[in-house]
Amino acid sequence: MSERSLPPPTLERLPVYVRVLDELARQGETTTSSSRVAELAGVAPAQVRKDLSRLGTYGTRGVGYDVVDLAAHVRRALHLSDAHRVVVVGAGHLGQAVARYGGLRARGFEVVALTDVDPEVVGTVVGGVRVRHEDELADVVRSTAATMAVLAVPSDAAQPSLDALAAAGVRSVLSFVPGQLVVPDGVALRIVDVAAELQILSFYAASPPRTAP
Amino acid sequence: MSERSLPPPTLERLPVYVRVLDELARQGETTTSSSRVAELAGVAPAQVRKDLSRLGTYGTRGVGYDVVDLAAHVRRALHLSDAHRVVVVGAGHLGQAVARYGGLRARGFEVVALTDVDPEVVGTVVGGVRVRHEDELADVVRSTAATMAVLAVPSDAAQPSLDALAAAGVRSVLSFVPGQLVVPDGVALRIVDVAAELQILSFYAASPPRTAP
Repeated sequence: MSERSLPPPTLERLPVYVRVLDELARQGETTTSSSRVAELAGVAPAQVRKDLSRLGTYGTRGVGYDVVDLAAHVRRALHLSDAHRVVVVGAGHLGQAVARYGGLRARGFEVVALTDVDPEVVGTVVGGVRVRHEDELADVVRSTAATMAVLAVPSDAAQPSLDALAAAGVRSVLSFVPGQLVVPDGVALRIVDVAAELQILSFYAASPPRTAP
Repeated sequence: MSERSLPPPTLERLPVYVRVLDELARQGETTTSSSRVAELAGVAPAQVRKDLSRLGTYGTRGVGYDVVDLAAHVRRALHLSDAHRVVVVGAGHLGQAVARYGGLRARGFEVVALTDVDPEVVGTVVGGVRVRHEDELADVVRSTAATMAVLAVPSDAAQPSLDALAAAGVRSVLSFVPGQLVVPDGVALRIVDVAAELQILSFYAASPPRTAP
């Protein structure tokens, strides 16, 4: 199966493998096994082997995988070798938190721009980046060469902002806004709904102890 | 199948149904169909019917579902009829953004406490709540009757903070900290890893247009 047609569940495990392999490399490990990766990733060993074979990587019998090579291979599959420049649309509390989050840069993403519509916020500097007006989004995307966006606007602004991002040529959008959006052609959208995550956990808060999915 | 053993994929769709049904109620709709809910939720109609039947709810043939009754039923299944009091551990940018996020209260969650270890932050007021020292977590949980927590601490503090929450009796934890944690017995943990979400989207940013999972 080519990388272009990775099944979504495999795709969603790849960032976990990258994190685990980087951690092993930091600890000075040079080779590793699918069982070890599986243990650290919280995934079944057979699943790890299947996922990695989908990327065309196979360990050497009796030796296992080269940690650095394997990390590089998984990164390539995720196109993380490309530098990803991110524009954050909405400079409220959440947008500002994302812009200031050091964990993004460490994992290959640079917030190159923030936009907002509030005149009190436009022109201020957040995480080293000056906030621009959302009306200038097309220019902001062009001048920064941003390819990805984080959407952190109020609910009623989400669809127009998403459409503006698509018109500006942004292909991948992570949205923190709950609710159904019409996804423009050619755009990949993922939604993180913090309240929905808490609602799912609410089920467990009131049930007998168990492990969350 | 009893509510206590809902399959995780069904469980994860229930907050979407709640949001859709609330929206229909706001629009003045009194009855609805599984097809309409499916359309608004972005889920197959047969899946909606299967999920709802797992909760023991069945529409009336030719009439459909009562919107308000069905919303209440799904809420009960998620134990959202209980008031959920949330403690946010870590009052950095992200913790503060969560504490100030109006969308939580609107969907049944009240942030009743924040903790941090930074003496500059302890004692300040965020979103109407005074930040307490994390050393006082047990007392904070007891005095506020918090049952859920949001973990927004640096990576190296995540495990001790999770253990402290468990010791204080918190049963459900939403963590924004990437990395594998040892989940204490009786605790349900869900992880939102913002950088991993962007890494998954990275695959699409560099691939031909398609729809993200």
